[in-house]
Amino acid sequence: MTQTADPAPLIAPPGLAGVVVADTALGDVRGAEGFFHYRQYDATGLARDHSVEDVWHLLLRGDLPDPETVRAWRGEIAEHLLATDRYAEQLTAVLRAAPTRAPLSSLRTAISAYGVLTGDEPLWDLDDAAREQAALRTAAAVPWLVAAAYAVGRGEQPRPARAELGYVGNYLWMVTGGTPDERAVRALSRYLCLTVDHGFNASTFTARVVASTGADLTACVVAAIGALSGPLHGGAPSRALDALDQIGTVENAAPWARARLAAGQRVMGFGHAVYRGLDPRSELLRETATELGGDTAELAVRVEKEVVRVLDEAKPDRPLRANVEYYAGVVMQECGIPRELFTPTFACSRVIGWTAHILEQARGRKIFRPSSRYVGPPVQ
Amino acid sequence: MTQTADPAPLIAPPGLAGVVVADTALGDVRGAEGFFHYRQYDATGLARDHSVEDVWHLLLRGDLPDPETVRAWRGEIAEHLLATDRYAEQLTAVLRAAPTRAPLSSLRTAISAYGVLTGDEPLWDLDDAAREQAALRTAAAVPWLVAAAYAVGRGEQPRPARAELGYVGNYLWMVTGGTPDERAVRALSRYLCLTVDHGFNASTFTARVVASTGADLTACVVAAIGALSGPLHGGAPSRALDALDQIGTVENAAPWARARLAAGQRVMGFGHAVYRGLDPRSELLRETATELGGDTAELAVRVEKEVVRVLDEAKPDRPLRANVEYYAGVVMQECGIPRELFTPTFACSRVIGWTAHILEQARGRKIFRPSSRYVGPPVQ
Repeated sequence: MTQTADPAPLIAPPGLAGVVVADTALGDVRGAEGFFHYRQYDATGLARDHSVEDVWHLLLRGDLPDPETVRAWRGEIAEHLLATDRYAEQLTAVLRAAPTRAPLSSLRTAISAYGVLTGDEPLWDLDDAAREQAALRTAAAVPWLVAAAYAVGRGEQPRPARAELGYVGNYLWMVTGGTPDERAVRALSRYLCLTVDHGFNASTFTARVVASTGADLTACVVAAIGALSGPLHGGAPSRALDALDQIGTVENAAPWARARLAAGQRVMGFGHAVYRGLDPRSELLRETATELGGDTAELAVRVEKEVVRVLDEAKPDRPLRANVEYYAGVVMQECGIPRELFTPTFACSRVIGWTAHILEQARGRKIFRPSSRYVGPPVQ
Repeated sequence: MTQTADPAPLIAPPGLAGVVVADTALGDVRGAEGFFHYRQYDATGLARDHSVEDVWHLLLRGDLPDPETVRAWRGEIAEHLLATDRYAEQLTAVLRAAPTRAPLSSLRTAISAYGVLTGDEPLWDLDDAAREQAALRTAAAVPWLVAAAYAVGRGEQPRPARAELGYVGNYLWMVTGGTPDERAVRALSRYLCLTVDHGFNASTFTARVVASTGADLTACVVAAIGALSGPLHGGAPSRALDALDQIGTVENAAPWARARLAAGQRVMGFGHAVYRGLDPRSELLRETATELGGDTAELAVRVEKEVVRVLDEAKPDRPLRANVEYYAGVVMQECGIPRELFTPTFACSRVIGWTAHILEQARGRKIFRPSSRYVGPPVQ
């Protein structure tokens, strides 16, 4: 037997920051430029002019659909929305057995059960068409399950899907119980389009690591939901809104921000790990919130100006701007989504990105298996 | 606003092979030496002389327990085993709603529900003592849930735990329904000790990525189970045993191996990604299988010799030896564990390693967020 030492390892920076772990054709984030794109298109441009279904087609199939294609595509999605209804009894039983006011944990459980119910199989045993079906089926089930988990957590019966309302409209119907108005659908659609994908964040990366083992698509999505539930990741659009409530009036904004800074606390809703300056998502969401109108939107815009002024004074070298969370919360609230569903609603769009990444990763056949550096006592 | 380009990224090899992604004091694998250790101790030595509970204490608390400590420790584990019983009704309801013959998928669902039922909270909201409790509670539930999922999948009622039998004995009782004999407990205990941890394989790495977000411990374990379920990872001790069945007699071993090689197929149960020569785990498991006795064990030893002879002739430069899967299947079969529970049984030991890694990772505050390289069409 040949006895050679293990090759000298490459030591990566903590958190793999700045380390390219895979190639992707799905998009990229250019933090320094305040720019991100899905495939070859500016993501904010897509969010302004296209539906979630268009962006979904772009990510999964590689191109923006023409009107005829999009009709068929929406039809497929509608079928998957209705398919979840057929398992309503079993899924409700799962949710009832462990009800919670934390819908992301319920979503994790229920989507895992849905994979079992629909006979989801390891990606490596499936051809491309079957993989795409698994991706569509799983992603379409997410809004259904979020709404159902919310209903069950309140002791209510989940509403059956109304697939004719489309991905966004149906979600609003299932959550609020009302026929959603067109402005709310358009606003929420923009938010969802803007948050479908965003580089190799922890949940997307988790999904790809699991996909690299050839596991079933459900396993990958369940893992990603777990990562998203981490306080450092999925964050909390609700936290930014809670802060806005606390501030209450525009006069309190500057003192509030100064007090946070003085106490060494994060100023919720401002600053981003990747975007050093403007977060392109918050720009469009501000516009969207303003279009929706309402007292919260108006207050948010005015408070933003005050807080940015304080931040610029305090940290002239490190511009902190409103991030995606800040206006996301405002938009969701104005659309009638309860605060505890803000992060789960984020999962409704991000699952589209996850599934596209999962399919891309599964096309390779290389499992993620990094190394570690042993730092314990010398081996006896 | 300062406009600088994003820093030039570091391009990692595919699958992060050979890239150190974190420090750990939990152990290491030295592939070239055919050696692995838990903390500062040779893992095979621990498996030979210590119980699973000892190794568990070593990984979680940092030292091998003295007799008094281990009594208290076993008492704690016993309480967590019994605690799962208290949720038997809800967990059975979850399992019944989506029954399957693939117990790993059921485990994924049920452990997620168990986290909800026990009010598992984000790791970052917990102190060290509460984190350890979450780790013990979750790991102790895994054998319970594997046995329960198996029972429900066969239309039976899960058996209540018999915690006085210990972690290993109780598992054998819950799966087989008989009071396990001492030899079986010792043999299975060795297998479990040998498979508690093994570097940054895909499931352990997944658990750490999720833990880096501050998510609850359940989310991390659920994600790891998903990675383990991948055909490239959890592999299949059952596959090696299926091959042994197919071979049937020692005379067929060499022709079988030659035929696999000629067809360019993997020779199941032989060769390992990290160990280029001997897999230290299979050495001890061969001994354990031989001690247990039985026709399968005898056949396995004789077939191994034949297959190794063929492999050495065919690939003199690349010695392929029996890997952990080969004798793991034999040991589990002789202990009375059904084939579809081989990989889930692996989860019963590996969850101990996962939880130790999760607690270690959560002590840092750096989220995994690698980069990717965009390889799609130029951005418009």
